[in-house]
Amino acid sequence: MDFSSKLLENAVNEVSQLPGIGKRTALRLVLHLLKQPEDQTVRLSESLRQVREEINFCKNCHNISDSALCEICANPNRDAQLVCVVEDIRDVMAIENTSQYKGHYHVLGGKISPMDGIGPGDLNIPSLVEKVKNESVKELIFALSSTMEGDTTNFYIFKQIEESSVTTTTIARGISVGDELEYADEVTLGRSIVNRIPFESSLKSS
Amino acid sequence: MDFSSKLLENAVNEVSQLPGIGKRTALRLVLHLLKQPEDQTVRLSESLRQVREEINFCKNCHNISDSALCEICANPNRDAQLVCVVEDIRDVMAIENTSQYKGHYHVLGGKISPMDGIGPGDLNIPSLVEKVKNESVKELIFALSSTMEGDTTNFYIFKQIEESSVTTTTIARGISVGDELEYADEVTLGRSIVNRIPFESSLKSS
Repeated sequence: MDFSSKLLENAVNEVSQLPGIGKRTALRLVLHLLKQPEDQTVRLSESLRQVREEINFCKNCHNISDSALCEICANPNRDAQLVCVVEDIRDVMAIENTSQYKGHYHVLGGKISPMDGIGPGDLNIPSLVEKVKNESVKELIFALSSTMEGDTTNFYIFKQIEESSVTTTTIARGISVGDELEYADEVTLGRSIVNRIPFESSLKSS
Repeated sequence: MDFSSKLLENAVNEVSQLPGIGKRTALRLVLHLLKQPEDQTVRLSESLRQVREEINFCKNCHNISDSALCEICANPNRDAQLVCVVEDIRDVMAIENTSQYKGHYHVLGGKISPMDGIGPGDLNIPSLVEKVKNESVKELIFALSSTMEGDTTNFYIFKQIEESSVTTTTIARGISVGDELEYADEVTLGRSIVNRIPFESSLKSS
């Protein structure tokens, strides 16, 4: 693309570094900003710089946080002995939105994925193993996505804490609520039959 | 969405002001930036602020420009008496990419669209009419999109310069190069027959 302005070209190049945003979309976004009041761009620019420079990660669970301990870890009403292992903070938000979980989290920051060059060393695994070895955790819930990489990560962690007395569980896989059986894939349907639960307990969870 | 950080919430809110970007995409983008080196965010933030605060619009054609006159208007090899009227600077880029046009442009900054609250007063029409009345223009090429709003804008401008001696033309509408006739819409196909051109001239344009 031939830009008539270096400033514009520069801004478009930077915006198009974002995932899923190509040059054309970047140009559309920058031109949109140029049509809006100047303070919108200033606020956008300032909030991005600020979040990148000032953000903290909770020293206990690696969740994103404005202070040293995140709101969840700092809350005395939550069960610190129950730890849910998730991939990133979006999963924390998703689980929090269900209002069904009252324990702590442990954010790995990704999953083991050799294809993307992510090894165990890039993830927050040592601090999790440490927590388990200190016997401060009673139950570890694996809530990673159900993919090859998720399963590998689960297994890698499991191997390291096998010796300890912690209970390890994994979230239930099965047919989504509201889904029709005939459209479910075989693996999911198969698992949902093998891992069936007493009917009474299905009545309890809302 | 329940963010555990005010900084994050703020950044996501600002990013989701951009057109076509919702809260979820905004969150994905911000989390991506948090995983990248800090200077990427600093460069992005800085380039956006800079383009918004320092950008100029060419005083002749209203194209985006780093100086008072844009590169096209400042180029003495281009024909200032031939003016192509376009909606925004993306159209200038598109026409420039064809390398088929050696005249000047006039960027309106939009088209008349009462539905979106854009009236003639919001566009760069007076300066165009002025240019025509000064008899500095020989031919005006309307190159707005072929929609109701584009046609309205064309007609509005045409009405104001009707009295002057300027030649007004519009870009050819017809079947796209490489398209098959049977899939073309009727209006386009109809126009392409009515506005047929001598076969010899189709050989000239590459």
